[in-house]
Amino acid sequence: MFEGFETPCLILDTVRLRRNAARMLAHCGAQGVLLRPHLKTSKSVEVAKIATGGRLSGVTVSTLAEASHFARAGFDDLLYAVGITPNKFDHVASIIDATGKTVTLCLDSPEMARALAESDLAAPALVEVDCGEHRGGLPAGADALIEIGRILGPQLRGVMSHAGHSYATDRVAEVKRVAAAEVDAATTAAERLREAGMAVEVVSIGSTPTVLHADSLDGITEVRAGIYLFYDLSQLGRNVCGLEDIALSVLSTVIGHNRAAGVMTIDAGALAMSKDIGANTFLPSAAYGWLCETETMKPTGLALTAVHQEHGTVTVEDPAWYERLPIGSTVRVLPGHACLTAAGGYGAYHTTCGETWPRVDGW
Amino acid sequence: MFEGFETPCLILDTVRLRRNAARMLAHCGAQGVLLRPHLKTSKSVEVAKIATGGRLSGVTVSTLAEASHFARAGFDDLLYAVGITPNKFDHVASIIDATGKTVTLCLDSPEMARALAESDLAAPALVEVDCGEHRGGLPAGADALIEIGRILGPQLRGVMSHAGHSYATDRVAEVKRVAAAEVDAATTAAERLREAGMAVEVVSIGSTPTVLHADSLDGITEVRAGIYLFYDLSQLGRNVCGLEDIALSVLSTVIGHNRAAGVMTIDAGALAMSKDIGANTFLPSAAYGWLCETETMKPTGLALTAVHQEHGTVTVEDPAWYERLPIGSTVRVLPGHACLTAAGGYGAYHTTCGETWPRVDGW
Repeated sequence: MFEGFETPCLILDTVRLRRNAARMLAHCGAQGVLLRPHLKTSKSVEVAKIATGGRLSGVTVSTLAEASHFARAGFDDLLYAVGITPNKFDHVASIIDATGKTVTLCLDSPEMARALAESDLAAPALVEVDCGEHRGGLPAGADALIEIGRILGPQLRGVMSHAGHSYATDRVAEVKRVAAAEVDAATTAAERLREAGMAVEVVSIGSTPTVLHADSLDGITEVRAGIYLFYDLSQLGRNVCGLEDIALSVLSTVIGHNRAAGVMTIDAGALAMSKDIGANTFLPSAAYGWLCETETMKPTGLALTAVHQEHGTVTVEDPAWYERLPIGSTVRVLPGHACLTAAGGYGAYHTTCGETWPRVDGW
Repeated sequence: MFEGFETPCLILDTVRLRRNAARMLAHCGAQGVLLRPHLKTSKSVEVAKIATGGRLSGVTVSTLAEASHFARAGFDDLLYAVGITPNKFDHVASIIDATGKTVTLCLDSPEMARALAESDLAAPALVEVDCGEHRGGLPAGADALIEIGRILGPQLRGVMSHAGHSYATDRVAEVKRVAAAEVDAATTAAERLREAGMAVEVVSIGSTPTVLHADSLDGITEVRAGIYLFYDLSQLGRNVCGLEDIALSVLSTVIGHNRAAGVMTIDAGALAMSKDIGANTFLPSAAYGWLCETETMKPTGLALTAVHQEHGTVTVEDPAWYERLPIGSTVRVLPGHACLTAAGGYGAYHTTCGETWPRVDGW
């Protein structure tokens, strides 16, 4: 099906993608929360429409390039879930001016709340709460939370948290504990603001594992997740998905056999795959990616053991592989971390339904 | 000088760039070899012109997107230094047809030599020789070398090797040993082809450390190097450059203070910096990059200790840093590996001379 394709290129299996999307929509529907898919993984309008079930609103982005791209494609109610600073106000304003869409911002300090409130920017904001990841956010009990709410006034839309540390385990029981802490942090912060007399419309949490495994989403209005659309070896190793759920792969060509050294080289290197090796924590065989048969997607047992900028090195223990994978033949490589692999500079996906879907990279 | 810049963005110090370029040109001139700069680091026409000293020929590329870009910008005699396969022949042909420039290919097997010789592609080729890196290439003494030369016939242009393993050390004596082996492999292969009656115009070696430290380049006609134009913490840790030579940095904004967790967050994460941690082998403090003062480029002593897609986490031991680097202030982050950082999706460099220089990413 990929005969003559120039490589490396991204292949997106739309059967798997649609199945992953439908499952998460059903899961969130059953829980009574809005699914606000994170588009940082796919950066694609076509994927976004599948992720929302055709709804042109309620999405999460990680860059203003994404915000602009999706707003211009008709999406409304975009959450830019990275802390805002004044050097980005003009860009946000240009998106709102050009499209009339709502872009909700995120912040966690009185300084930025003041900068936003004193600016001309007609954008609401969520206050980020640290639920234990210890990246962005205030503790749910911090005095500054109420101060920020008061400064924002009518621009306060709600609170959000992100349990990125849910990836530090492969045990469901531990994910459930992290999810409970995330729900607790977000709802506690929301409750404190409400008790102080402020309206809190949005109580947002998210990470694929906590959304999937939370025992209760009581008090949560929406969830953010993104990687579930594609999945990858990192998610497989953490038991978040099965092998047959991984929708993204890199089509790559064998460009050399170095029998003397016991390796073959493919044209998927560090830019094509990324240098993310986080999958190896729970799946030590992941290396920089698993080589699968092009047509069947069956793992060959070979892995990308080293990457340079445009060269991927594959250790070959059984010389029969030189016959099975001659120079010029192709493989599909399952990524360790799909978000970073897809951002490698491809610009677009080749889909298994025969279409080309553009991505919006950069900032 | 970077007031109001939207971040993250690439900053290229053109004083340092020009000094790095001039040094390498002088070094190669003194050695009597052609410098065929590798443009995979910069992917920029403006940088390429500085690297060649204004000569519009004799460059190395790592993708056909680069080959096309530089050929259309007027560069001739381009070496595509990644093993060619037939699924790329049409792209190569389209570049040659559109520009009339010479694109030299690289291969290391009789199969690919035959595919090229039997195709309509009017492109010469170098045979790659493995000088000890054990990635691409044949052993210099392999029987297949002569076979490939005979198959290529008049399309044989020469031989090339790449001593990527020169980065496995920080000791000059060891680099000198690797350089001697690289020179020996390339010249041995060239001599064998000549003894078999074939013309060998090009004997090409390359890697910044071996080019800088080789005791003798006798028999070598040209050298390939790229990272010396920008340098990075990986090169600093290997004693290949000084701190004041690093020309590339990422301008980034402080987007959050999490005093409770002892960290601050900047907007240079995994996509802005890459997840390459190779610098840490010889410079354990490198982490994902060093934070420097925006104007002076003086290292602050702070480092990017963790990265997520768009978030960079900086461990803060001295709380005074929260005052020195308030939310909204900027830093310039020195990259661990400049080639991968620059390929993060920026699309262009902001230069310290006030210009914007585009890059050509993707394939």
